[in-house]
Amino acid sequence: MNFLEERILKDGIVKDGNVLKVDSFLNHQMDIALFNEIGKEFKKRFKGNKINKILTIEASGIGIACIVAQHFDVPVVFAKKAKSINLEGEMYVAEVESFTHNCKNQVIVAQKFLGEKDHVLIIDDFLANGCALQGLIQIVQSAKATVEGIGIAVEKGFQPGGRIIRNLGIQLESLAIVERMDSTTGEIEFRVQEG
Amino acid sequence: MNFLEERILKDGIVKDGNVLKVDSFLNHQMDIALFNEIGKEFKKRFKGNKINKILTIEASGIGIACIVAQHFDVPVVFAKKAKSINLEGEMYVAEVESFTHNCKNQVIVAQKFLGEKDHVLIIDDFLANGCALQGLIQIVQSAKATVEGIGIAVEKGFQPGGRIIRNLGIQLESLAIVERMDSTTGEIEFRVQEG
Repeated sequence: MNFLEERILKDGIVKDGNVLKVDSFLNHQMDIALFNEIGKEFKKRFKGNKINKILTIEASGIGIACIVAQHFDVPVVFAKKAKSINLEGEMYVAEVESFTHNCKNQVIVAQKFLGEKDHVLIIDDFLANGCALQGLIQIVQSAKATVEGIGIAVEKGFQPGGRIIRNLGIQLESLAIVERMDSTTGEIEFRVQEG
Repeated sequence: MNFLEERILKDGIVKDGNVLKVDSFLNHQMDIALFNEIGKEFKKRFKGNKINKILTIEASGIGIACIVAQHFDVPVVFAKKAKSINLEGEMYVAEVESFTHNCKNQVIVAQKFLGEKDHVLIIDDFLANGCALQGLIQIVQSAKATVEGIGIAVEKGFQPGGRIIRNLGIQLESLAIVERMDSTTGEIEFRVQEG
């Protein structure tokens, strides 16, 4: 069991409707020391990959992405979810469906921040249905840039996102994959990973 | 002139309608090395303050807040702007008006992450009318916690937010205060600060 799985068992809470609350350390209150452990682990797992940019999506991906970026010494670009009047000029746009908010969002990145020379590591806190990630992949492809890999903190292994993305042939590393959880007992079972 | 003012002169773009675009390094693409300089500077400016938590607001405050937090060795809590089904339990709620989006938002923090023992440094990327900050201050006060200070990257000195907040007697440190800018010439003039 790795450091993140241990932390999820200690502080994560299983709620009805397949909701795993990790808001005390991951996506509302943020444990920066833990994020640095996550960064170290991604640096190890993506060691051979040539990465010059990290891409994430607002809001809860940003904190992890920024701390992880220090381990790769690269800038971070975060995709925005709604059109702002401060976002002008040419933009890449992908449409994604949000599981938690039950609505459709546009994912937007200014074209000047992503181009064909970029080798991108995509970072996010959660992977469930994979809609947000598919939007980010779509944007990297629109930019003719390369997806070097995807680093996720917590994957819900019983939802289809992980399988869909691995089937695209992309290196997807999820530090904790929840295989099964039970809101009545609070039990959480992780997929056994190598290494 | 400090490092951030220099960077704004180099890479910031003045647009019509008093818009200063710093999206190539601050709030869309993020220069993590620059954020670490910002963290170092805030650590210096808030040296005597007892700080055990950083509070920011999604989305563009999160990256700076997380990097700054490393210099204080404290966790970050980010306020959310809309009610999510994953945000449950007791919450502090403040209503704020957004200048850039021309709408009202609720600013929300779960009560369990802010209490009377907390000494809070509020961090954000921009200060203009100060509505978001006033929402965050309101939330800290609802929690009976203490605002130890506010650290801002870029303040628009010709808009009222800075004055309103300094009039509350709060230590507000803005690393770059734009006094005047001109979209026809691209000129930017900063307020002269001591130190």
